[in-house]
Amino acid sequence: MRILTGLQPSGKLHLGNYFSAISKILQYQNKADLFLFVANLHALTTFSSQKELEENTKSAILDLLALGVDPDKTTFWVQSDVPEVTELTWYLSQAITVSQLQLAHSFKDKVAKGFQPGAGLFTYPILMAADILLYSADKVPVGKDQKQHLEFARDIAERFNASFGECLKLPEPDIDENTATVPGVDGAKMSKSYKNTIDLFASEKEIKKAVMSIVSDSKGIEEPKNPDESIIFQIHSLFLNSSEQSVLKDKYKAGGIGYGDLKKSLLECILDHFAPFRNRRLEIEKDPAFVEEVMNKGKYKASQIARLKIQEIRKKLGIYQSI
Amino acid sequence: MRILTGLQPSGKLHLGNYFSAISKILQYQNKADLFLFVANLHALTTFSSQKELEENTKSAILDLLALGVDPDKTTFWVQSDVPEVTELTWYLSQAITVSQLQLAHSFKDKVAKGFQPGAGLFTYPILMAADILLYSADKVPVGKDQKQHLEFARDIAERFNASFGECLKLPEPDIDENTATVPGVDGAKMSKSYKNTIDLFASEKEIKKAVMSIVSDSKGIEEPKNPDESIIFQIHSLFLNSSEQSVLKDKYKAGGIGYGDLKKSLLECILDHFAPFRNRRLEIEKDPAFVEEVMNKGKYKASQIARLKIQEIRKKLGIYQSI
Repeated sequence: MRILTGLQPSGKLHLGNYFSAISKILQYQNKADLFLFVANLHALTTFSSQKELEENTKSAILDLLALGVDPDKTTFWVQSDVPEVTELTWYLSQAITVSQLQLAHSFKDKVAKGFQPGAGLFTYPILMAADILLYSADKVPVGKDQKQHLEFARDIAERFNASFGECLKLPEPDIDENTATVPGVDGAKMSKSYKNTIDLFASEKEIKKAVMSIVSDSKGIEEPKNPDESIIFQIHSLFLNSSEQSVLKDKYKAGGIGYGDLKKSLLECILDHFAPFRNRRLEIEKDPAFVEEVMNKGKYKASQIARLKIQEIRKKLGIYQSI
Repeated sequence: MRILTGLQPSGKLHLGNYFSAISKILQYQNKADLFLFVANLHALTTFSSQKELEENTKSAILDLLALGVDPDKTTFWVQSDVPEVTELTWYLSQAITVSQLQLAHSFKDKVAKGFQPGAGLFTYPILMAADILLYSADKVPVGKDQKQHLEFARDIAERFNASFGECLKLPEPDIDENTATVPGVDGAKMSKSYKNTIDLFASEKEIKKAVMSIVSDSKGIEEPKNPDESIIFQIHSLFLNSSEQSVLKDKYKAGGIGYGDLKKSLLECILDHFAPFRNRRLEIEKDPAFVEEVMNKGKYKASQIARLKIQEIRKKLGIYQSI
């Protein structure tokens, strides 16, 4: 079964990214044919500078390799390295109407906020459909906010197949209903735009500073604490299985430990958990030749499939081809 | 000076296509660096079947080669053979807003006629801008109805250059104010959709049938005729210089020749004029290896320029590239 997913290169990864998306994606690596790409063409619709996109893309590659993407198991590439996806986008543009695109949440949200949306943002769901259909993905993991994009992809594929003959595989959504919402240090959803993140690959000093800034109530050391109301506990529990969670809960309830120490314990847990990934990232960062080789390999694997599919689609459409 | 133009493969060429567009394009061949492509990707927005697009594309190639496109002088290719144009379309989508696209005449016309426009039709001006900007065209011949598309291209290029640094050349329009409107056999503008055409590469019998069906008044053989009101004369004059036109006018005015004979004279003129082209078309139609070689050469020439430009644009945007 082929599972396909793309990650936008949005800057420094934080615990929220890790627990809501990346750790789950990596679980597929051993049980499915995982197709994973860094979505730098999508990022163009929101990015602010050449330098930012370039650095974030490189950073996303290093992050994912460090976190365990295994290029021998997973087809891992950068979206722009297989430009066939933009060719398919043009073909698929014939199978969706302007009115349908106007229903996209991502577009409606921008308009509601008073933005002048660009054509890129407007046609974004078509590029997303092309990502999925070019590689004949069986399943696509989607959060609740992306369900609609998958429906667009299915819709486009159905219309295309009906008009030009069967050639696009209809993808199934893989909806994860119990995705953890990871709180940031202020208790709101952890998000780069709220500046409340704990970053995976920051310096120890920065991670410590972030953890120590987690908001708590003013209970003294000896007082019993309510784990269910503690952001420290909520973040800590992400790393623990249920019996470990019970043990920690009891500690909170018993009192005798201050928030400072509970934060230190969380900090230790974070550093321990990510130590191998952090070390691995430092290693591969020093080895650009390795990274290049890996990404070339991914490009090659993805391109082979993409080219065959594009050939098939061109034939269905009656597109002329020189040799 | 590089002049770029694309022709949609819309089926059988007729006198209207020839005198309003093709003969003019071919004049550039000896005095400029002509870039000419068969716009099959654009044709997708209106085509009705795989077979139609495939046959019309092949037919357009044969037509243009037969009419005198010289692949040693002109860069001549099929649009889909250089898919970089679709990659550029995505990049340029970031430099135009939805509201701007909504102002396109081609879009507004469809909406006014009650159509549900597809996303392809809507984003068509972006693909057209990509056609022009990918090849750094200096000038683009435009009819009155296409002025706006060139303005879009200039606008997109300006915004792109301002955002990401100078890299796209602003094209100039080459507006031909005195384009002949070629009347069809019924006097309305000659157009495939009005079924009033005289086709360049039809059989002699079909051409004869079309010419003999040109509408005329009921003046008898001996009566003087008014050339300015005669469709036969209007079509015939397209082939004549001004002194030849005067001579023919006098014949009409003098009387003594019936419309039947005037039509026969026009038919002879058409067959004479196109005989070398018609013979040439029969020859190359029998030589698919030659056509293939020519189109591969065009693909190669256009691709080289397109790839360099795409590299430059990718760098400006911060797009990751494996080797």
